[in-house]
Amino acid sequence: MVVKVYGPAYASPKRVLLCLVEKQIDFETVPVDLIAGENQHPDYLKLQPFGSLPVIQDGDYTLFESRAIIRYYSEKYKTQGTDLLGKTMEDQGLVNQWLEVEAHNYHPPLLNLVLHIMFSPHFGVVRNEQVIKESEEKLAKVLDIYEERLSKSKYLAGDFFSLADLSHIPFTNYLVGPVGKAYMIKERKHVSAWWDDISSRPSWLKVLEICK
Amino acid sequence: MVVKVYGPAYASPKRVLLCLVEKQIDFETVPVDLIAGENQHPDYLKLQPFGSLPVIQDGDYTLFESRAIIRYYSEKYKTQGTDLLGKTMEDQGLVNQWLEVEAHNYHPPLLNLVLHIMFSPHFGVVRNEQVIKESEEKLAKVLDIYEERLSKSKYLAGDFFSLADLSHIPFTNYLVGPVGKAYMIKERKHVSAWWDDISSRPSWLKVLEICK
Repeated sequence: MVVKVYGPAYASPKRVLLCLVEKQIDFETVPVDLIAGENQHPDYLKLQPFGSLPVIQDGDYTLFESRAIIRYYSEKYKTQGTDLLGKTMEDQGLVNQWLEVEAHNYHPPLLNLVLHIMFSPHFGVVRNEQVIKESEEKLAKVLDIYEERLSKSKYLAGDFFSLADLSHIPFTNYLVGPVGKAYMIKERKHVSAWWDDISSRPSWLKVLEICK
Repeated sequence: MVVKVYGPAYASPKRVLLCLVEKQIDFETVPVDLIAGENQHPDYLKLQPFGSLPVIQDGDYTLFESRAIIRYYSEKYKTQGTDLLGKTMEDQGLVNQWLEVEAHNYHPPLLNLVLHIMFSPHFGVVRNEQVIKESEEKLAKVLDIYEERLSKSKYLAGDFFSLADLSHIPFTNYLVGPVGKAYMIKERKHVSAWWDDISSRPSWLKVLEICK
């Protein structure tokens, strides 16, 4: 039984794909076209009532929310593939802490940049230069804190690659690519080294290849 | 050694207090006045570089982000006090899923209502009726999905009280109280029964008493 992952073309589902590759878990992907509104189809809403991506089906188990899914597989297959959670309870606490920072501090301004620069006018987004400017300023402040943190430890939660780092990869790949703000990463020495490291992992290269 | 919890007057730290009471873990509280800007003091920023609440200190271990902290204590003391995680990996996946839904679907519109109705003009928030209207509409849609979910299971993740429910309590207490939108809960039969149940837990009554 392989895991079915919905919506591989988009960044949030790529968190799940990355995790499954790191954990050496077989999967197949099911396309969902957000621009055509397939995520509002009644059959999709039965799986994910909010109409968001991703959702997985694993036998008769259905789970949504990318960060919940990556926790589930990292815990369930703790000793298979890369350990993405940390060895001690305290390490796991820090992994969760930085995963929450990604969700609440890093992601919201980055998502605004992605929506207003890459996706407008889809999803009802009208490109707004003021939102772009403010989001860039917010993200810069967050990256200043990351720079300080990454001057002290190789990865966000410590000296081991974890879900906290993994969760940043798909949207940061938009930032340095189609969003056109690679300078935000490159001008910060430790953030830049961290990004070079995590974005060159074989798992990410494989996900990019699969989703081409 | 008791756990120190910073910022008990505010809703996010109350998630942590609730969890510690449920898990029968001793703690003490350290006031942080957001309106006076104490969260921007250099000593505070050493603990929490983003200037957010809450943060805990447990001996020489420091952890921030309320949902990371409640996961940490729920896992570390799994068999002490109330089990807040669920028995199986699959239950735990659903707890995490609904905890993410709380963070990404429920909380953002509710936080807007809280900021614009309760806290303006503090924190630079200028009361905006359009934001209030749109946030109320968004929250109503989320609550419609909760109503459907809670018609099928007593709590969000299943038939057991978990972190997913707990995490909703402090801000929903604002919604039905000072925000003045209790009707949003009361007009939905299953949401209303769920709220009556979770908000009458002895742990929440104790937290309210402690923070009076």
